[in-house]
Amino acid sequence: MSFNTFGHLFRVTTWGESHGPALGATVDGCPPGIALTEADIQPWLDRRKPGQNRYTTQRREEDAVRILSGTFEGRTTGTPIQLMIENTDQRSKDYGEIAQAFRPGHADIAYHQKYGLRDHRGGGRSSARETAARVAAGGVARTALAALAPGLAITGYMVQMGARAIDRARFDPAEVGRNPFWCPDPGTAAAWAEDLDALRKSGNSVGAVVEVVATGVPPGLGAPIYGKLDADLAAAMMSINAVKGVEIGEGMAAAALTGVDNADEIRLGPDGPEYATNHAGGILGGISTGQPVVVRFAVKPTSSILTPRRTINVKGEAVDLVTKGRHDPCVGIRAVPVAEAMMACVLLDHLLRDRGQTGGVRGRIG
Amino acid sequence: MSFNTFGHLFRVTTWGESHGPALGATVDGCPPGIALTEADIQPWLDRRKPGQNRYTTQRREEDAVRILSGTFEGRTTGTPIQLMIENTDQRSKDYGEIAQAFRPGHADIAYHQKYGLRDHRGGGRSSARETAARVAAGGVARTALAALAPGLAITGYMVQMGARAIDRARFDPAEVGRNPFWCPDPGTAAAWAEDLDALRKSGNSVGAVVEVVATGVPPGLGAPIYGKLDADLAAAMMSINAVKGVEIGEGMAAAALTGVDNADEIRLGPDGPEYATNHAGGILGGISTGQPVVVRFAVKPTSSILTPRRTINVKGEAVDLVTKGRHDPCVGIRAVPVAEAMMACVLLDHLLRDRGQTGGVRGRIG
Amino acid sequence: MSFNTFGHLFRVTTWGESHGPALGATVDGCPPGIALTEADIQPWLDRRKPGQNRYTTQRREEDAVRILSGTFEGRTTGTPIQLMIENTDQRSKDYGEIAQAFRPGHADIAYHQKYGLRDHRGGGRSSARETAARVAAGGVARTALAALAPGLAITGYMVQMGARAIDRARFDPAEVGRNPFWCPDPGTAAAWAEDLDALRKSGNSVGAVVEVVATGVPPGLGAPIYGKLDADLAAAMMSINAVKGVEIGEGMAAAALTGVDNADEIRLGPDGPEYATNHAGGILGGISTGQPVVVRFAVKPTSSILTPRRTINVKGEAVDLVTKGRHDPCVGIRAVPVAEAMMACVLLDHLLRDRGQTGGVRGRIG
Amino acid sequence: MSFNTFGHLFRVTTWGESHGPALGATVDGCPPGIALTEADIQPWLDRRKPGQNRYTTQRREEDAVRILSGTFEGRTTGTPIQLMIENTDQRSKDYGEIAQAFRPGHADIAYHQKYGLRDHRGGGRSSARETAARVAAGGVARTALAALAPGLAITGYMVQMGARAIDRARFDPAEVGRNPFWCPDPGTAAAWAEDLDALRKSGNSVGAVVEVVATGVPPGLGAPIYGKLDADLAAAMMSINAVKGVEIGEGMAAAALTGVDNADEIRLGPDGPEYATNHAGGILGGISTGQPVVVRFAVKPTSSILTPRRTINVKGEAVDLVTKGRHDPCVGIRAVPVAEAMMACVLLDHLLRDRGQTGGVRGRIG
Repeated sequence: MSFNTFGHLFRVTTWGESHGPALGATVDGCPPGIALTEADIQPWLDRRKPGQNRYTTQRREEDAVRILSGTFEGRTTGTPIQLMIENTDQRSKDYGEIAQAFRPGHADIAYHQKYGLRDHRGGGRSSARETAARVAAGGVARTALAALAPGLAITGYMVQMGARAIDRARFDPAEVGRNPFWCPDPGTAAAWAEDLDALRKSGNSVGAVVEVVATGVPPGLGAPIYGKLDADLAAAMMSINAVKGVEIGEGMAAAALTGVDNADEIRLGPDGPEYATNHAGGILGGISTGQPVVVRFAVKPTSSILTPRRTINVKGEAVDLVTKGRHDPCVGIRAVPVAEAMMACVLLDHLLRDRGQTGGVRGRIG
Repeated sequence: MSFNTFGHLFRVTTWGESHGPALGATVDGCPPGIALTEADIQPWLDRRKPGQNRYTTQRREEDAVRILSGTFEGRTTGTPIQLMIENTDQRSKDYGEIAQAFRPGHADIAYHQKYGLRDHRGGGRSSARETAARVAAGGVARTALAALAPGLAITGYMVQMGARAIDRARFDPAEVGRNPFWCPDPGTAAAWAEDLDALRKSGNSVGAVVEVVATGVPPGLGAPIYGKLDADLAAAMMSINAVKGVEIGEGMAAAALTGVDNADEIRLGPDGPEYATNHAGGILGGISTGQPVVVRFAVKPTSSILTPRRTINVKGEAVDLVTKGRHDPCVGIRAVPVAEAMMACVLLDHLLRDRGQTGGVRGRIG
Repeated sequence: MSFNTFGHLFRVTTWGESHGPALGATVDGCPPGIALTEADIQPWLDRRKPGQNRYTTQRREEDAVRILSGTFEGRTTGTPIQLMIENTDQRSKDYGEIAQAFRPGHADIAYHQKYGLRDHRGGGRSSARETAARVAAGGVARTALAALAPGLAITGYMVQMGARAIDRARFDPAEVGRNPFWCPDPGTAAAWAEDLDALRKSGNSVGAVVEVVATGVPPGLGAPIYGKLDADLAAAMMSINAVKGVEIGEGMAAAALTGVDNADEIRLGPDGPEYATNHAGGILGGISTGQPVVVRFAVKPTSSILTPRRTINVKGEAVDLVTKGRHDPCVGIRAVPVAEAMMACVLLDHLLRDRGQTGGVRGRIG
Repeated sequence: MSFNTFGHLFRVTTWGESHGPALGATVDGCPPGIALTEADIQPWLDRRKPGQNRYTTQRREEDAVRILSGTFEGRTTGTPIQLMIENTDQRSKDYGEIAQAFRPGHADIAYHQKYGLRDHRGGGRSSARETAARVAAGGVARTALAALAPGLAITGYMVQMGARAIDRARFDPAEVGRNPFWCPDPGTAAAWAEDLDALRKSGNSVGAVVEVVATGVPPGLGAPIYGKLDADLAAAMMSINAVKGVEIGEGMAAAALTGVDNADEIRLGPDGPEYATNHAGGILGGISTGQPVVVRFAVKPTSSILTPRRTINVKGEAVDLVTKGRHDPCVGIRAVPVAEAMMACVLLDHLLRDRGQTGGVRGRIG
């Protein structure tokens, strides 16, 4: 739970730097007997892979995952699963300039102050490249969830880029995979394409809002007070590079609502409680209710831009810095599969923790 | 680390229900040799105490804290500090009606489904009363921080109630303690008073946004990837009752910014790096930079309202529920001291963890 | 998991000093719905209570436990259970002499060096009085185990005092409760009584060996590599005051065996595998097999004795120290109920962890 | 913290199976700025390497360690260090027979019952091969300790094999590296060679006792109650394959001592307290005193022997099993470097934890 590990019973420790020989995730606590091969994980990595269109970094990585341990004859054994992804396209020379100067808005200066040294190649550990390891671990979590909680589905998409948000009235889940922005509204996707082309030409970048929804989540996941499902989801999303805000259900907009408007009224349906609305985002008192779990987060604009910014170098000298190299103009795009992976890891961890404490037995209604 | 504990080296486990005999916090890992008596903690509890004005619950609790262990001759010994607050005003009869029916928006139904039973008296464990224990633990954390990080200061205040936000141009920190809303803008405070009087009369409630700022935070607190300071702060705030969104620095507004605008440009000042702006909220790559750490969160409107809402009872029968009793019409008000306490606990924990890993030695610049 | 907490899903944090106002245990993660009142815990505390015969400290404590949280209408709710025991017989004046001087073999000097100060009254936190809190927590664990693993039984007894060991040929479980030594061999019990009377008169003390056996333990508890059941049991027992060695099954004697002799041969019985012997002590590869789990540990002789020993005081001055006051001449006696409690806590924790990871489903044989 | 991880601030998660493609250790929390390359780790692995003499398994492994992350330009960066060792000599055919039958005394049956399936090739995860990963992690810990606690030295050796123990009067530390048994007494080493030759010829195996001593340990490491240094050491040693008993200082023999004999009398020396004896094994109240930390443990005889033993297979059928293949006749020999590694990991973890809580400042005497 500290430093580079997340989860309690399903525990993921990611390791590796942007320009090291490899990176990966050590996954401990996966239930045994789950059918799992690289083919179950690779498709999720492929969704996140850089260089798939002109809106993401042109770094060329295969991101081929290898399972080094924890499975036998195609099934998990309950022992640690080591997932390794080798780095193949590490053009260190591109990054020479930032070895000495600190990019404004980037982790460079914070790492330097904390550790006294840092792997500056491509951002080292603070590179978004680390998220490939999370997506691999998320692939394991999704595979286990498919076995333990059939019917549970996780879907992420972008709902805002810069100042332009989607039109919820045109929301079409089928569109999400049809454009490079994971955008559920084709009209907005087209507009974003124009926006981003213009921004890239001007050497600039932009922020975004991503939403992740899990449906079919069993009620009862999460626990008071610091085992709250929403507290863990908030930490999980905030741990993703560039994230500056996290919302559950209504999120920040809840501040403007009254109690009368915010109440999700309840009726008993054929399969249990049904709710007239979902302002709560599927979580009450830190515990899932069975409604869709809705998480939203904002990423700031990429700090690595071609427009010069004032900063200092390690000697303390004032310099104007332009960050060349291959950077995503909007990191929100590739944050979508990462956020889905984090959602999967958190839900599986809570499912196992709940199974531990309560046996997964639910209180009856009616 | 799980369930009801937060922190790693400075660990706080809260316990107790709204209408049980007592509640409190078990604080483990406090540094030894810190001067600490009840008098260091009580003032923080007094700030949160219910019934101090007509805008908070009329429950009358002294909230007198007792230190049962962990100090000797007025100093911490490094052993667990048990903080106990006895409940004195438990009018259980007020809550009879909610024993069977589930309040919409409240944890009732989630607890029932998860655990099969629940202490319905006043919300039991899910009551905001639990936050008194956090404030007590926060008092310990603040006292230790005063010794270990002199100059560090934590201040919380409300910046929005319902749709009405403060005017940042009129921000005056001296005003915060002068009105019942911890509002830094006296004009807005007066307007909120009118808003809230009207809402209470109509049997309604409202949400709010709270901001907490820590100044004088040493650089270097926090660690990648799941030990990020912002990830822990997000979890800490999201764990507070009714919180639905958490922001660091620009927060959700970061989505609408470009990289050029969002860059916090750096210059070397006499005491180290100085930043032209603080979009980042004092945290880069999960690690504090020395700038003020700025956290903001939204609370939803109180679920317990006098306006009838449609719901079901334990038998699954449809009922219309009115929640009588003594409830805060805006829980944001009393969330202010709670959020300050959480900030104190998280910062102390990270300060100790950093001291453990790095010895607290900082990388030089210049 | 660090400092004063043990367990992962069933987590016990003990707090309190020998001469503070109270001590207790904060128990988090107990399964919900377990019938639990003080009457389920008090009998276990009574077994450990001081002053019951002339062979234990004459301190008079009622050790009355109060449940301050976590139950409702006589059942656990799944929320933290606070167990408090008030100290009633704190004769601080008895301990004045050790305020400045360090008792050889006692934690005094180590606490002083680590923390810079210590609560010297009665040993403060390092007093065996802390174990009362463990026994209370163990009472909760036993009650939960009775519900979740019916048939599981835990029995502790003393098998050696000083150089005199029991005769295993005369082992009679019914005798354990019939003498003040929890001795299963009445002949040895009588001899120990004489031994101990002589030792006390000479102002001396003596060590002992305690054995704890759990029968009816389901197979499958424990996990590689650092979640091994035996590793956790070893830590649990070693954490008890004065313990210097821990054994599982054959223990240290395993060194002298050959592989042919040590093999516990297996046959299939009507209820699963049966073993010809139990050299392994019920644990293979860190995982329970269904055989009785057998743990043994040695306690050193009480350090607080009436015979003068050479030591130093806080000023570094050489002094000869005699420890007056009320001390157990053989701490092994009262370690028996403590060890049973630790066994119960560890087994429940592992049962919950296993239920979390595997769902408690067992691999079939035959 | 659970399952396959040990340590709190210095955290080691081992992964990998005997016959998988690779195994290794994910090391999180190592202090930054430590000079570290493969050359600092490889010598420790070489000490443990199989096939170095006729008394250990004839499996031929280079055990070449690769650092995949966490260092930059030859120094640790404070981020996770991934250590990978590829398996090169995996003769799976040797192990075909044990795929279906459970070796008495081996983890086979426990894994099968717990997980429902197991990687039977060479024992899979329960193979002693896993300890290579521990030794690699221990190499990192030793390197960090050399920087943070200069003067601290860790030495392991065997003191008993079968019924034959060393003669402490002939103890010569210089002898430890001169014989294949890490034996400090050359006479006993010669006798063991004869004993072991005879045992191997008869298709048998034997147990052993290993002792590990750390000198130059700073006082103040460890914390009450479940953060005790001895409790963590006990767990660390018990987690090693085949260990059945762990002792600190006098260990089990403490039971036979009186308080007068057991007291380690104290005098002030030029560098702090000095002790006339070290019955305590360097730990009082769970905290190091500055004396040598002395740990001892027994390993049972290897379960894989050439003498047929009665057992069952997965179908429950009775079979007589002979375990062919390449096994250590006395696993104590190769447990020596493993135990040293565990000692290093535990001490570094506690050093960091202590530095976190107390700042490493020590209480003054004199």
